[in-house]
Amino acid sequence: MRLATLRDGSRDGALIVVLPDGQRYRPAGTVAPTLQAALDDWARCEPLLRALAGGEGDALPLDHARLHSPLPRAYEWIDGSAYLNHVRLVRKARGAEPPPTLETDPLVYQGGSGTFLGPRDAIPLVDPAWGLDFESEVAVVLGDTPMQTAARDASPYVRLVLLVNDVTLRNLIPDELAKGFGFFCSKPSTAFSPFALTPDELGDAWHGGRVHLRLKTELDGETVGDADAGSEMHFSFYDLIAHVTKSRALTAGTIVGSGTVSNVDPARGVSCLAERRTREVLDTGKAVTPFLVEGQVVRIAMADAAGRDLFGAIEQRVVRA
Amino acid sequence: MRLATLRDGSRDGALIVVLPDGQRYRPAGTVAPTLQAALDDWARCEPLLRALAGGEGDALPLDHARLHSPLPRAYEWIDGSAYLNHVRLVRKARGAEPPPTLETDPLVYQGGSGTFLGPRDAIPLVDPAWGLDFESEVAVVLGDTPMQTAARDASPYVRLVLLVNDVTLRNLIPDELAKGFGFFCSKPSTAFSPFALTPDELGDAWHGGRVHLRLKTELDGETVGDADAGSEMHFSFYDLIAHVTKSRALTAGTIVGSGTVSNVDPARGVSCLAERRTREVLDTGKAVTPFLVEGQVVRIAMADAAGRDLFGAIEQRVVRA
Repeated sequence: MRLATLRDGSRDGALIVVLPDGQRYRPAGTVAPTLQAALDDWARCEPLLRALAGGEGDALPLDHARLHSPLPRAYEWIDGSAYLNHVRLVRKARGAEPPPTLETDPLVYQGGSGTFLGPRDAIPLVDPAWGLDFESEVAVVLGDTPMQTAARDASPYVRLVLLVNDVTLRNLIPDELAKGFGFFCSKPSTAFSPFALTPDELGDAWHGGRVHLRLKTELDGETVGDADAGSEMHFSFYDLIAHVTKSRALTAGTIVGSGTVSNVDPARGVSCLAERRTREVLDTGKAVTPFLVEGQVVRIAMADAAGRDLFGAIEQRVVRA
Repeated sequence: MRLATLRDGSRDGALIVVLPDGQRYRPAGTVAPTLQAALDDWARCEPLLRALAGGEGDALPLDHARLHSPLPRAYEWIDGSAYLNHVRLVRKARGAEPPPTLETDPLVYQGGSGTFLGPRDAIPLVDPAWGLDFESEVAVVLGDTPMQTAARDASPYVRLVLLVNDVTLRNLIPDELAKGFGFFCSKPSTAFSPFALTPDELGDAWHGGRVHLRLKTELDGETVGDADAGSEMHFSFYDLIAHVTKSRALTAGTIVGSGTVSNVDPARGVSCLAERRTREVLDTGKAVTPFLVEGQVVRIAMADAAGRDLFGAIEQRVVRA
């Protein structure tokens, strides 16, 4: 089942089910007004939504430009950094060492979750000196998840899977992290894919708490990344859930991200410009790729093994704010 | 006007207005079902809620044990650390230097906002070795606040003021901060005061984006802190708002905290045990006060200059989880 949120002038939009062709939908307001409301009452809503998606009723043409983030705002957005190749490269780029517990203790940060960007919303460029970058990621939306959920018990709490553009202000990071409290201003509003999928929609590609498919990132129509989101995800989503429930419970609708998808093989490209710049430094001694400039377009999408688009595309233009 | 949320079996509870005696209320469901709904539509709801609070209609007796956090969950909970005495003492306690920009660049962290504790909910003690501590704070609830709001323009976005117990797992902090991404597991679910007040309810005590009143903290009935929340708040709430909107907008219902209230004068006591332990080390070479143990009760409250209780009391017992 694929769910999405149509802009209707309200803060949280209107829940819809998307048909298999990705071009038609059915309004789901008879089941729940919003995706958050459906997640709050999932046991009741899920079968009704599945019936609606699989039914014979009329469908409406889907205008992708009207889609918001599946959750236009969420109660929590927690982002991991589970692809260790990314951690190693990016820390190298800013002259920082990876933590000694890199392989045993997941890195996560608490992100801002009040003002998400829609999948086609502009990325605001406030100050080019801040070093605007994209980060292509995979994420899961959870149901109510108890404190101290073990990784082996985490699977049933994963309600939905979606893609992320974790917009980052690269040049604000060093000073911010030096203060010791983690990211804040360096992580502006995040964007999500048009569609949120129940895990079964991914078939065999969803196993072990990982999405075993390629995540494709394009910049101005050029493919810059085509990374396998599965095998090099050192901590699975189940591992991340165990970590983030160590000392508290999570409410329905909490989003947990994978961190920037990254593969050791340079042929797989990059899912953020910081990695490309680091590779340039390692190869030639000098970073030549600039961070994002006004007018550039970032596109993030994922297809299944048969080439069928799964999540719709995040497609965002950089606009001077 | 004082607002609160009554537990009614729903996730977000039922909005009520509290009468001046703090012992009676009127249901506000005819205006908005929840506090979040009222904040989402504040221009319409505020005058209606004020009319309800000031009206002549019947009132019901208020059972404080039924109150939840005014927002049982919020879209963002951003906590500052605006009392520099606290930063200096606590960093000294863990052998860390305050950042060089301490007086010019506010310290804030993004907190978890999905599962707040009610003002009388137990504080779960999962593992005594984690070093359970309270932190008594003041916070504001914002309306929709644009990106890059200047401090001088921030006042109209402050909708409500409330108190906080920012529960902290002191012994998890060093390893977590060493990883570089800030707090996560070391900050379990936060508790808030029963009542959220519009700033006018504080009279002259609300000025310059600070609450110029004493915040009283008791542990097992003994006063451990009676700190002035006003004059030593180095960054005002307006300064904090300017900082946290540097690169993104905030949605209605976002909560911004002051950080642990702390005064240089030791006679004012402490608003967390970590400070008391640090003072013990500085005075005698050894910390003797233990962190919270099972059965202890933390009480946090604030009265106006005439001694009238303002926010109701946070009163939480530590219970083994």
